[in-house]
Amino acid sequence: MTTKKTMITFEPVGLRVEADAGRTILDAAREAGIAITSVCGGGGTCGKCKVRIMRGEVREVSGADCLSHEEKAQGICLACRTRPMGDALTVYIPPESLAVRQQLQVECNHVLSAPDNDLHVVRLNPALPTLEDLRDDATRVRQHVESILGREIVLPFALLRNLSNELRTAGWDTSAVVLRGRLTAVLPPERRPFGLAVDMGTTKVAAYLVDLQEGRVVDSEGNVNGQTAYGEDVITRMGHANESFAQAEKLRQALCDTINSLIKILGARNGLVQEQWVDAVLVGNTAIHHLFAGLPVRQLGMAPYVPAVSAPLVLEAGAIGLAIHPAASVYLPSILAGYVGCDHVAALTAEKLYAAGDTVMLCDIGTNTEITLRHNGQMCCCSCASGPAFEGAHIRQGMRASPGAVDHVIIRDGVIRCSSIEQAPPVGICGSGVLDALAQFLQQGMLTKPGGLDGAHDLVEMLGKERAVCLNRDAPLFITQSDVSVIQLAKGAIRAGIDILLEHAGITYQEVDRFILAGAFGTYIDPVSAATIGMIPPWPSTRVVQVGNAAGRGAVQMLLSDSTRLRALNLGDQMNYVELTAYPKFHQKLARAMLFG
Amino acid sequence: MTTKKTMITFEPVGLRVEADAGRTILDAAREAGIAITSVCGGGGTCGKCKVRIMRGEVREVSGADCLSHEEKAQGICLACRTRPMGDALTVYIPPESLAVRQQLQVECNHVLSAPDNDLHVVRLNPALPTLEDLRDDATRVRQHVESILGREIVLPFALLRNLSNELRTAGWDTSAVVLRGRLTAVLPPERRPFGLAVDMGTTKVAAYLVDLQEGRVVDSEGNVNGQTAYGEDVITRMGHANESFAQAEKLRQALCDTINSLIKILGARNGLVQEQWVDAVLVGNTAIHHLFAGLPVRQLGMAPYVPAVSAPLVLEAGAIGLAIHPAASVYLPSILAGYVGCDHVAALTAEKLYAAGDTVMLCDIGTNTEITLRHNGQMCCCSCASGPAFEGAHIRQGMRASPGAVDHVIIRDGVIRCSSIEQAPPVGICGSGVLDALAQFLQQGMLTKPGGLDGAHDLVEMLGKERAVCLNRDAPLFITQSDVSVIQLAKGAIRAGIDILLEHAGITYQEVDRFILAGAFGTYIDPVSAATIGMIPPWPSTRVVQVGNAAGRGAVQMLLSDSTRLRALNLGDQMNYVELTAYPKFHQKLARAMLFG
Repeated sequence: MTTKKTMITFEPVGLRVEADAGRTILDAAREAGIAITSVCGGGGTCGKCKVRIMRGEVREVSGADCLSHEEKAQGICLACRTRPMGDALTVYIPPESLAVRQQLQVECNHVLSAPDNDLHVVRLNPALPTLEDLRDDATRVRQHVESILGREIVLPFALLRNLSNELRTAGWDTSAVVLRGRLTAVLPPERRPFGLAVDMGTTKVAAYLVDLQEGRVVDSEGNVNGQTAYGEDVITRMGHANESFAQAEKLRQALCDTINSLIKILGARNGLVQEQWVDAVLVGNTAIHHLFAGLPVRQLGMAPYVPAVSAPLVLEAGAIGLAIHPAASVYLPSILAGYVGCDHVAALTAEKLYAAGDTVMLCDIGTNTEITLRHNGQMCCCSCASGPAFEGAHIRQGMRASPGAVDHVIIRDGVIRCSSIEQAPPVGICGSGVLDALAQFLQQGMLTKPGGLDGAHDLVEMLGKERAVCLNRDAPLFITQSDVSVIQLAKGAIRAGIDILLEHAGITYQEVDRFILAGAFGTYIDPVSAATIGMIPPWPSTRVVQVGNAAGRGAVQMLLSDSTRLRALNLGDQMNYVELTAYPKFHQKLARAMLFG
Repeated sequence: MTTKKTMITFEPVGLRVEADAGRTILDAAREAGIAITSVCGGGGTCGKCKVRIMRGEVREVSGADCLSHEEKAQGICLACRTRPMGDALTVYIPPESLAVRQQLQVECNHVLSAPDNDLHVVRLNPALPTLEDLRDDATRVRQHVESILGREIVLPFALLRNLSNELRTAGWDTSAVVLRGRLTAVLPPERRPFGLAVDMGTTKVAAYLVDLQEGRVVDSEGNVNGQTAYGEDVITRMGHANESFAQAEKLRQALCDTINSLIKILGARNGLVQEQWVDAVLVGNTAIHHLFAGLPVRQLGMAPYVPAVSAPLVLEAGAIGLAIHPAASVYLPSILAGYVGCDHVAALTAEKLYAAGDTVMLCDIGTNTEITLRHNGQMCCCSCASGPAFEGAHIRQGMRASPGAVDHVIIRDGVIRCSSIEQAPPVGICGSGVLDALAQFLQQGMLTKPGGLDGAHDLVEMLGKERAVCLNRDAPLFITQSDVSVIQLAKGAIRAGIDILLEHAGITYQEVDRFILAGAFGTYIDPVSAATIGMIPPWPSTRVVQVGNAAGRGAVQMLLSDSTRLRALNLGDQMNYVELTAYPKFHQKLARAMLFG
């Protein structure tokens, strides 16, 4: 009797393992090198190893008493009490159950600048109501603040929902936060106002705590976008959202929960109460932006892929469920096109492309890759469906950039050497590792220009029915022919975008003075490897600049500066969007771009 | 062995009966003359006789399978399957379980007027998006409508949440509703826009369906305010709301549910879809206004009783859970004082008090009674805590004006004759009936000026330990000495308000040219009886005008006319609020006002 095996896919790390029916999900995860939290050591009592079953069947062992009815109804179970059934299972590990968090690029390198956000903080101690002075609380406060500031202000309705209680609890001595002529918060005098900037990536979400008075990033934190549980890519998620309003709301809530968990961490670490967060700027690609705002996405999935709205949105935190001051404004900058979102606008703003005098290209690599070229004061942009391969998806042993992921590969004297993140024992391969490996394969003559692994080469072996290269023997890690093809598609999509923008502007790659690689993946990859496999043209490495999370930086700048918001808004007028799929001979160009080297 | 008895109070009708432990709640209600719906005749199968247990204990008989877990958790049970336990029980009968609805004054007598609400309805068929014209949906629609109207418009965010889908479902051929420069709705071309006006009374809620293009009331419907389940008067309800945000939200939801049930009835009866309701005006007293808007009420219950906000509010229907178009504006007019709300503003507006050339007093009698006096172009107003006695509360056999309530009483030749609403067998006494009875008692010498029933009179008998008069022997109906005292307090509060406003203006009652009685109760009472017991000064009946629901009428007018909204807003500047409890010698004046005759 052979033991029945189940293929378990762990999300959001994106790692797959085969597990015996007799093993628990916790065991399987550990074998795959994923560190799920477990305090009781699998005894079913600590409740720390909660996971959600997304697809497939399981059987539960008694002892899961630490789960609520609500959790059970949502498919949540204890990894240590649950065993796989059937052939395949997809298990989502929520961030709080992960002992080691993913490597998330949140550093922001923000240069201190004098804020230009029209912020005024004034002491509020108006005359108390009496029978002779029966003004309502809103009028009393408004007139008092107006007399101090010497200008008219407005009180948002959301503030009024608690203002009367706040004033009386504080004995009518408080601190009024007026932002852009709007009384946003009434705080105890010792509490200062802060802002929230968020880069909502398809896969990762980065949040920044910003001091609105001093103009600097105080702290930052990142986590996996909770929507990942509904699909790796935005197309799958939009499909879910199109099913019903309720389903769309679930996706909205998943992202909102992720952001709120980051707010909670940042707030706790810096001793803030919810009311101190008085302003926010959120950026993301068009699909994520729409899903977050509760806007319809059906038309984003159909040609010609138009947004529901592209103008900047100013929402109220309380209305959209963001756990900051309910009266805080939440600003989402303008969108350039269906697949060029306000995250790209933020990145362009951070890199000041609107003012660049040279010829410069900015490329933000992600599940979707946006590219903008500025030449002779003109700008054009495009969007490439690069897919989630660089995040480790659809790669046999691919995974995200978490501890234990192989991130760099080198072949010397016929020996393959790998380094892994945090020097942890290798358990999978992340995007930068695959890129390095392919560049090395090419240089070693193991990989042909059209993308075939050379069966005659010593390092190429057979893994089942396909050719593969073993990177590591201890915990066997392979890159297969299929993996090569997946990466080929992804890098080809990006290269086609670069080539078409250059052609559209009538210039050659040599004429580009600077090539800016933005985004987490763009920071970790080796630009030489990227050029070697032909993902980018053969620019000398001096022309390639890796700038990290420019989108997050742009969001912070828009939080601190109204003139930056205006510049970001004006970007749209200068921009020429190029729809790649409609570009002449697109498919021939894509085919050529897919060649290696 | 004596059978155990339970005193059951049925809300919101406000009727009490004693029931055997062996009888069901349905039986007890029927014996009390309350018609609870029951299709299966008490078999526990039709699920029509749902009631909610507010206080006290019950035991349930099996068969209540038609109840959901959620309903059971809320204390909902089937009246036919449930029997009382203990000494006292309070049962709330939701409107949908009442076979006969309460007599609710909703007629509005609205005179057709040319609307002045800045409404434009235009055919919307813009050019479709193509690769050459990639404008987002919001911009495309806005520019198209602006080109037709020749003016700028704004698109509310709430509209955008479904606009893209609506346009594509309709094949881009729709009807755009632009209200006050705001694209509020996109409807199928054959569907016209309508508005909602609501008078949110403490006890009763009246809703009006208004044709915004033709300027007329199409239909109306009324029901009991669902908040009644949390207390008859606003003080009790505010106490509940002060407990917690969650509790306040329950009260908010209860009223919202009531309004939504009326919207549903009106919509179904007139073949409307939810999106056709594109505008709303809601009026109510300050407490109800605050509870509905989710504003804090704690400061309304503490001297000097100031509102959280008195300026007009413009909310969005979707944000507050009103079941009309989510992008529709919901207008709540300005408030005059803590206990003089926008319902009084609406009544004053409907009666055009702002333009009156004579000396006129408007009195809106309810659980709270608001009075305004206009004399020599000056206006002053006050608020009287008249209490819910006129609604039948705290009266031994009191009830609201439902079928079977005694509404008129006359004594001739020593014989008491009663008439009841809809000529149904008498089951209780409503406000106008009590008022008539007391006036008759006074005229017959059965009641003294200080308020004592004369034990020597033939018609006065002993009921238990107190004096009482039997109005009806078949189903015994009594008015007791305690009932007299309760009414005395209520009528005294109103009369004190009238007297103080007259004194404040330096005039006598003879100088009042018109006395306008507004509100449901004010319409049904006999003004002669009111003058007889001294609730109002001895004005000749020619000077007393009964105008019905002026507040509802004012709401309709504000829905149809922006200039009326402006006039209502300006009322506040002309108004002088008089706080009765702070008025010199208030308690002496109240004591005098409580005397009969």
